[in-house]
Amino acid sequence: MSKYDIIVLGSGPGGYVTAIRASQLGFKTAVVEKESLGGVCLNWGCIPTKALLKSAQVFEYLKHAENYGLKVSGAEHDFDAIVKRSRGVAEGMSNGVKFLMKKNKIDVIEGYGTLKAGKKIEVEGTEYSADHIIIATGARSRELPSLPQDGKKVIGYRQAMTLEKQPKKMIVVGSGAIGVEFAYFYNSIGTEVTIVEYLDKIVPVEDDEVSKQLERSFKKSGIKIKTSAEVTSVDTSGTGVKATVKTKKGEEILEADIVLSAVGIKSNIENIGLEDVGIAVDRDKILVNDFYQTNIPGYYAIGDITPGQALAHVASAEGILCVEKIAGQHVEALDYGNIPGCTYCSPEIASVGLTEQQAKDKGLDIKVGKFPFSASGKASAGGNKEGFVKVIFDAKYGEWLGCHMIGAGVTDMIAEAVLGRKLETTGHEVLKAVHPHPTMSEAVMEAVADAYDEVIHL
Amino acid sequence: MSKYDIIVLGSGPGGYVTAIRASQLGFKTAVVEKESLGGVCLNWGCIPTKALLKSAQVFEYLKHAENYGLKVSGAEHDFDAIVKRSRGVAEGMSNGVKFLMKKNKIDVIEGYGTLKAGKKIEVEGTEYSADHIIIATGARSRELPSLPQDGKKVIGYRQAMTLEKQPKKMIVVGSGAIGVEFAYFYNSIGTEVTIVEYLDKIVPVEDDEVSKQLERSFKKSGIKIKTSAEVTSVDTSGTGVKATVKTKKGEEILEADIVLSAVGIKSNIENIGLEDVGIAVDRDKILVNDFYQTNIPGYYAIGDITPGQALAHVASAEGILCVEKIAGQHVEALDYGNIPGCTYCSPEIASVGLTEQQAKDKGLDIKVGKFPFSASGKASAGGNKEGFVKVIFDAKYGEWLGCHMIGAGVTDMIAEAVLGRKLETTGHEVLKAVHPHPTMSEAVMEAVADAYDEVIHL
Repeated sequence: MSKYDIIVLGSGPGGYVTAIRASQLGFKTAVVEKESLGGVCLNWGCIPTKALLKSAQVFEYLKHAENYGLKVSGAEHDFDAIVKRSRGVAEGMSNGVKFLMKKNKIDVIEGYGTLKAGKKIEVEGTEYSADHIIIATGARSRELPSLPQDGKKVIGYRQAMTLEKQPKKMIVVGSGAIGVEFAYFYNSIGTEVTIVEYLDKIVPVEDDEVSKQLERSFKKSGIKIKTSAEVTSVDTSGTGVKATVKTKKGEEILEADIVLSAVGIKSNIENIGLEDVGIAVDRDKILVNDFYQTNIPGYYAIGDITPGQALAHVASAEGILCVEKIAGQHVEALDYGNIPGCTYCSPEIASVGLTEQQAKDKGLDIKVGKFPFSASGKASAGGNKEGFVKVIFDAKYGEWLGCHMIGAGVTDMIAEAVLGRKLETTGHEVLKAVHPHPTMSEAVMEAVADAYDEVIHL
Repeated sequence: MSKYDIIVLGSGPGGYVTAIRASQLGFKTAVVEKESLGGVCLNWGCIPTKALLKSAQVFEYLKHAENYGLKVSGAEHDFDAIVKRSRGVAEGMSNGVKFLMKKNKIDVIEGYGTLKAGKKIEVEGTEYSADHIIIATGARSRELPSLPQDGKKVIGYRQAMTLEKQPKKMIVVGSGAIGVEFAYFYNSIGTEVTIVEYLDKIVPVEDDEVSKQLERSFKKSGIKIKTSAEVTSVDTSGTGVKATVKTKKGEEILEADIVLSAVGIKSNIENIGLEDVGIAVDRDKILVNDFYQTNIPGYYAIGDITPGQALAHVASAEGILCVEKIAGQHVEALDYGNIPGCTYCSPEIASVGLTEQQAKDKGLDIKVGKFPFSASGKASAGGNKEGFVKVIFDAKYGEWLGCHMIGAGVTDMIAEAVLGRKLETTGHEVLKAVHPHPTMSEAVMEAVADAYDEVIHL
């Protein structure tokens, strides 16, 4: 029986990153993967969707070329080629992970792994043992009882990125990051899109003003939005789908070719042997302490199957921290209050920390600042005047409680807020950090200035 | 005679920002402008060039649409429309400054202002007095004796953005930010461009590896580059221009329609009354202390006419600091070692702090980390694999000495390094600030990890 220091079950952005860091730290490491290296993120999530969205973004430029002093005739999109490009990018990244495994001397065990007592994993009849077993099996698209996915007409994110034919009409159920990214993508290439959101605003985890801005932008681009609404049933018996949608005004039937269910995720905790080993689970999540140890010594869990935010960068950070702790390094627990979230539709959304409402609900005395890109020189020059940066500070202690951005390229701008908050910056320090002109990033400085009544360009 | 608390001479990004902050602080303020509000930056620099570059960037997308699964049968650029768009953006920004002056109750005195003794300024025959006079007259294109600008065939940046006809061939002398931005712009719309640089590398202030990467990218896109070369004379007597270029290999004659001289700037310190007042000048710059006071009480100077970096954001920061000091606020002197610089060609360049060579020249023991965008998932998805992030840390004290970026969108990413350095971050803190996935900004975290032998994706 092969014996390792560390075996990681699952090779998503949690698992493969954990394995690399483990190997760097000198552990003999293996990773078990049932499908493609890189997991959902690389193969069916973060990466291929960003490729699709890039095609959509470029197509927008083609459609509006005259805004930039350019002329285009015969601008068309080739749905198959767009999907093919996206698959190629995903394949390239997965091959990259294969290379990294080899370079770091990590054994890749292909097949479906099941946990066994005594710190063992069985993969297709073979047992492997390790001093430490790290579970990183991730999650999948959640199914609602009222919206069973048949993979043809009622689909999850996975089918949504490899449809054989572009749908003419699509209903997107749920308006989190996945829902609005697909809504934006399909709308931009000409599909009629309707979003159905159960809560009273789209991108419900975001600050209210961000949700409102995205709703305005989406409606302007032709996306239909129904909030405080739910799909109570679907009829797939005909050529398309008939979805019964219940809103405050009553019920209506919407017809479409495809219904995309994007109502969240479900942890992959079934049939991996958790019960046999006796690992404690609560409400779809494996229970862990600050260093990702489960209740059973030698078994750890990271990523979407644990209670933190189900995001690729969280999984990676958790895995690194987990193995650094195993290696005896001094590590600090992850600050789940300082995890950025990004949504890559257009305009993009990026945020970290408390929303204004959350800060108020906590009874905090706050200072709020906001700077619209309409007042930014770089945004004007780039034709990106939509959106804003909003910042929230504690009025008493000056703590940077939250930062919320919507606009072009903001997903690459939020890191400043994450690092600043980690370093316990004050607003004054952000203000006096000279931001280059002309950039979109000046809006962060100006939003902070606005919070302290020192804004220049408003 | 009108009396003010503060009069600012010049309304560029130094002057108008200073005036707004002065007004916020309760000073009765006026600004003197001889031409258009916003100065060179808004009207003839930062802003209109970014508009031109955006057109070039979109045109690149049109030319390479098939890379994104899109088809275009005819893509053309309309030079007049591109220039017109750029002028429109500049005009909009200048009107924005006009609005800000009014909103902040700042008097705009139109005309050419001359300093007088006794804290006075004369503008077209009328004298105005103030308790504090802030000189912010900026700079203009520097002229080389061997390359006199006639504004027709041998031009500066100003003419370069409003040419009546697109040149077929252009020689760009000097490869600082202005030179390479115009070289990129004209090359991308089909002009044959040759860069002539006196030093042995292009973008000479940047880290050597950045210069090399840009040279590779530019050559690939068809721009010809001659380094360690100079234009010794120009002959404009024929239909075009014949430039004699001296290189290590000898002399050659290059023919072109236009020669753009982009060899730096010259401070506007002549004919503004400095001598009458007795304000001390040294090597083209007005001498000031940490709070921008000249040798004559009541007279201050900020921006390009002072010794700091001649950049818009430096001028703004200096002006704000200058009036906050006048207002009696506790202010810290500007840290000129933490000023970011940005260049907006494609790939973009952004940097702050010491280059590797500068750090070595100082005898510092350093750790260097580098992460190429070719290993970034977001870069692959976006088709932006060119470039890298490079970081330099002090090996002994962990100080973040420098950060150098070249690639898509990096001008909006450098703020993280500026703020981090201001807050005296360690590399470990940057590493443990969770950067969102998938973003280009992850490359900063990974470059830092590389410096400490903890990089994951290499």
